[in-house]
This record gives sequence, C-alpha cells and structure tokens, in this order.
Amino acid sequence: MQIGELGEFGLIDRIAQRVQLRNPSSLTGIGDDAAVVAGNEKSSLLTTDLLLEGVHFDLTYFPMKHLGYKAAMVGFSDIYAMNGLPKQLVVSLGISKKFSVENIDELYEGILLACTQHGVDLVGGDTSASLTGLTINVSVLGECEPEKTAYRSGAKPTDLICVTGDLGAAYMGLLLLEREKTVFETNANAAPQLAGHEYIVQRYLKPEAARSTVLNMREAGVTPTAMIDISDGLSSDMLHLCRQSNVGARLYLDKIPIAKQTFDMAEEMNFDAVTAALNGGDDYELLFTLPLSLHEKVKDLGRVDVIGHIVEPENGAMIVPPNGEPVALQAQGFR
Amino acid sequence: MQIGELGEFGLIDRIAQRVQLRNPSSLTGIGDDAAVVAGNEKSSLLTTDLLLEGVHFDLTYFPMKHLGYKAAMVGFSDIYAMNGLPKQLVVSLGISKKFSVENIDELYEGILLACTQHGVDLVGGDTSASLTGLTINVSVLGECEPEKTAYRSGAKPTDLICVTGDLGAAYMGLLLLEREKTVFETNANAAPQLAGHEYIVQRYLKPEAARSTVLNMREAGVTPTAMIDISDGLSSDMLHLCRQSNVGARLYLDKIPIAKQTFDMAEEMNFDAVTAALNGGDDYELLFTLPLSLHEKVKDLGRVDVIGHIVEPENGAMIVPPNGEPVALQAQGFR
Repeated sequence: MQIGELGEFGLIDRIAQRVQLRNPSSLTGIGDDAAVVAGNEKSSLLTTDLLLEGVHFDLTYFPMKHLGYKAAMVGFSDIYAMNGLPKQLVVSLGISKKFSVENIDELYEGILLACTQHGVDLVGGDTSASLTGLTINVSVLGECEPEKTAYRSGAKPTDLICVTGDLGAAYMGLLLLEREKTVFETNANAAPQLAGHEYIVQRYLKPEAARSTVLNMREAGVTPTAMIDISDGLSSDMLHLCRQSNVGARLYLDKIPIAKQTFDMAEEMNFDAVTAALNGGDDYELLFTLPLSLHEKVKDLGRVDVIGHIVEPENGAMIVPPNGEPVALQAQGFR
Repeated sequence: MQIGELGEFGLIDRIAQRVQLRNPSSLTGIGDDAAVVAGNEKSSLLTTDLLLEGVHFDLTYFPMKHLGYKAAMVGFSDIYAMNGLPKQLVVSLGISKKFSVENIDELYEGILLACTQHGVDLVGGDTSASLTGLTINVSVLGECEPEKTAYRSGAKPTDLICVTGDLGAAYMGLLLLEREKTVFETNANAAPQLAGHEYIVQRYLKPEAARSTVLNMREAGVTPTAMIDISDGLSSDMLHLCRQSNVGARLYLDKIPIAKQTFDMAEEMNFDAVTAALNGGDDYELLFTLPLSLHEKVKDLGRVDVIGHIVEPENGAMIVPPNGEPVALQAQGFR
C-alpha cells in the first residue's frame, strides 16, 4: 500500500494501534503533543540517536525489521551505559516515496520487538515526508537511582577495565555484507554467500544492548566507577572515558574478546581482527571500570572480560601487545 | 572552517563549550551517553520533532540562526500544548559537506537563544555526517503538575474554543519568501522585496512558542479542558482535538484572528487569508478549550480570542461564515 493512500494521520493511527504501554510510568503515549511520564524520585536519563540511510545503513542488505530493532537498540544502549534502564521511546521518521506502508510496518515490528524485549514503551514520535531516503531518530528516556548512575568521568587509577561480549564482529559483518553487495552488483544472479557467517552478520544487523549486564550488576551490588557503550570502537570510546575521567589506560591486546567467526572472516579478507575490534564500532557492548577490590565480583556479571586497568593520566592511553611496545590508542569519529 | 578540520568530537566540544545549564533538574548535560535529569513528583513530558532540508526548510532564504531558533521553538511548543514548561532539549544533526563550522555555530546560536528565552537546557545530542543536506531532530523534556496537564482529549460540549495570537501569517510569509526566491532564480540581480512584510516573514522564520499564555493561565488559575498547538493549521488541529475528545466544534469565521499584514499579502497574491489561517500551518499558536463558566477569565490570558464553541459529536466540526452555510473542516498532513 502506498503511504499516500493512508496519509500522515492514517499512518500514525496504524502505528498507535500496535502499541501497548507496559510501564506504569508511561501515563500517555502516542497521540498528544507530548508523551506524559509519571514523576518519581529516580533520575531521568535522556538520549537521542540519528540514523541516516546511506550513512548508517544500506537498505540493499538491511531488512526494515532489523533496522527498526537496531535503531531502538542503539538508544537503549546509551541508557544502559549510564547504568540505567530504558523506559520510554519516541521515534521520528522521515520517509521518502519509495517506501510502502508495509515497509514502515516492518520497521515498527522491529522497534516494538526491541521494546518488548527491553521493557520499553513507544510513547510518541514524528512522521514526515522526506526527499532523500529514510531518516530515523530515536530518543529514549530511562531511569536510574542517582547513586547508581555511571558517568564517563568516574574512573580512577588501578580500576579494572571491563568489557561485555566480544568486539569487532559487527564490523566484519558489515565488510562481508558490503563485499556480497559488490558481487551482486556485478552479477545479479549471484546469491549472497553468508552461510557460516551468521554470527557476524547478526551482530551488525541485529545488535543486542547489554541489558543483562546492567541487571547482573544490580544483582551483585556492583556500580561501575565509569561506563560508556562501544559505538565508535573500543579505541575511541576508551579515549572518551579516559579524557572525561582524566586518567590513562593500559589495554592488553590479547585480553580483548574477539569471536572465532570474527577472526575467521578477518583472515579470509586479509584484515586485522584486532583493528576491527579497536576501530570498527557498532558493537553496542559496555566498557566500564570497577575498583580493583571488586575483582572477585566480575565472574558474577555474565559475559564480562577484564581487558586492562586505569593508570595515571600522564601515562596516556595505550594498548600493549603480548610481545612489543605499547601503542597509543587513536580516536575515530565522522569527518 | 571545514567541519572535517575539527572532526566529530571537536565539533561536539565546540558546542558543549557554549552551553551553560540553568535548571537545577539538569544534573548532567552534553558529554555522556545520556543526559541526567533529577527526579521530582511532577510528570515528565517528552516530545520529538524532525526537520528536513527541502521538506521543512529551504536554506536559500532560511538563515541558520533562525532555523536553530525555530527548531527549538517547534519542540517547546509541543510542551506548552500540554500546559507544561520545557526544561531540557537534545538535538540530533545530520550535516552534509556543504556546511562549515560557522554554519553550525549559527544554528546553535539560534538554538541557544531559544533556550535562554524559554529557560531550557541543551543537555545532549547526536551529530552525524549526512549525504543529503541538513537533518535536525529536536527532542524536548518538560514538566507539569499531573492535575494541570492538558490533553487533546478533555473538551466538552459548550466549552469555549480559544486561540492565541493570530493565524495564517507564517504561511503568507512562506509564500512571499518562495515568490522572491523564484524572482531571484530568474534574475540574480533582483533583491528580495520583503520591506513592509517583516511581520509575516518573521512569523515563518522565527516563530515564538506561546509560553506567556501558559504562564498567564497558571497565574489566573485556569487549566484548559483540552489543548493542542497549531502546527498543521487550525482545521487539522481542531479536528485532532475534536476526534480525541469525541466532540464536534463550531468555529466562527469572522472570529479567527488574522493580522493586517496577512490580509494585505493575501490580497496582493490573490490568495484567501482565511485559507492560510485554516490550512497554512506553522503558526505555533495554542488552540484550547475552556469551560463556559471561565469566560470572564479569557481577558486575563493575554492575546487570546474566543473563536467558537464545542458541540455534541453528531453535529460535526464546522466553520460558520458570517452569512452562509457552515462548512466542514478538512484535515491536512503530508501525503
């Protein structure tokens, strides 16, 4: 169905009909000038993320449902990175003529699946025509007890540096998808060769924000001294944390968690898996610091590795190879 | 200066340096994964708005500072439309190569001016490269006492229908700017003829959200039974309010406030000023309903006109000309 047949308000109704609120704090959702969220004594956390077609995603290989799921996950991840829990979501969409109503349905299917899995309510948004492809902006409201909020700025020398999950897989998944797209463009009969690489492809197309780590930390009575989510890559995000905490860091190259499928694809592509882990980004894992005294608690946090420790600022932020000289971490970011 | 010279993180620093937080509830602003807002017993209001180059604004005649101001105002207006006060703002920007650092500075100058005038803190955002022009998303967090929150759904038959300011001016301003752009495109030496039309041009380029009305209502002890801001045009927004309140409406055509400059430009362009008021949109005035018993209070609310009254739903939403048959209101919206 053409979106023009429904019109803007028909489209909004269609979205609203699929949404059920689940948090008691979500007093009013879609359908008014603003969402209404009940006040409480916890702090509110607010974050916003913009995803642009051609910059952040390529619809040649990005299914709409996955895209919706990922967009929501990118927002949730920012809230987890404050040690909070996401509660409400608002989504802005700019939609060009090439999209059908069914495409938008699929996008929201992904958004709502992410919401269901993370206990979040879709409470509003904005829809607009666009001249140039798909624009998605996700703003998430979350909450946290003030004394448990984890900023980027609290790391102290001797703190352990921890990371959830594994790194670099999403980036190798992206490289694989780009390679198969190139093959397809030169030969339209070629089927994409993704078999055996499901893990890395999934990590790029359908990342999972680290909710379980935040819940495990609460269970274990652990509050990180500093925390950030890894969206730009371990190097960049470690540097953010160091700069805002005014500390240095030593990361041990052989401690960085990298999945076997990531290594395999890197080898196949003649690419360095460690570079993917350091600079690839799109991991949506959590990077956090804990006091050395909590070392024994790390095993209670689920899939968490200690990859280094915080040092005095004058010692800089370095990565240490098993046999060799420390190398300074390098920042990335769009240019 | 090219944005590439600063890089993403340099650009964020530059923005952050210009921001000073003024609300005690803004615990942490730009620079972490999410903004942190102190909890309180009031309800939080959350809204999001997307503005796309070529759809919502044309940079041929839209100065960046005005654009920033307007983007913020669009978000604030949604919060006022709930009878709340805006407190925190997060801004997402997608920036293509054609923009310089100075352009982005000007945009934030406008955003921050709007923030200063409305007591709002810029507490975060997302910046990204874009392939196709400028994308702006504004999400605003506001607050309101639960018992004062004005939804779209509370209007009752016999309620007075009120509107702030005047309508249709922004749309006539847009038509004028578009006309002068066309002249300029055929003759690059032609200077735009805007003299004498400052009011309507200003209403389009630099709208003012109706904060004073919300403050006046608090002062006067008045809470609207329903409220919405006029962004799509009086017709569409009146219909939203009627539908969500399950009521009808009678608007009196000769009561609709239209400025002299709006009439003058409409006459010059052979356009109907009432059509601009009903369907033009971009007014960012408030449309609200009050119990008939509060009629005497209207004069205390500032520049507010009573333009009609609410009727039973079976009587429909109609506009009544001075001499003639009632006409059904028509909805707009993007297609």
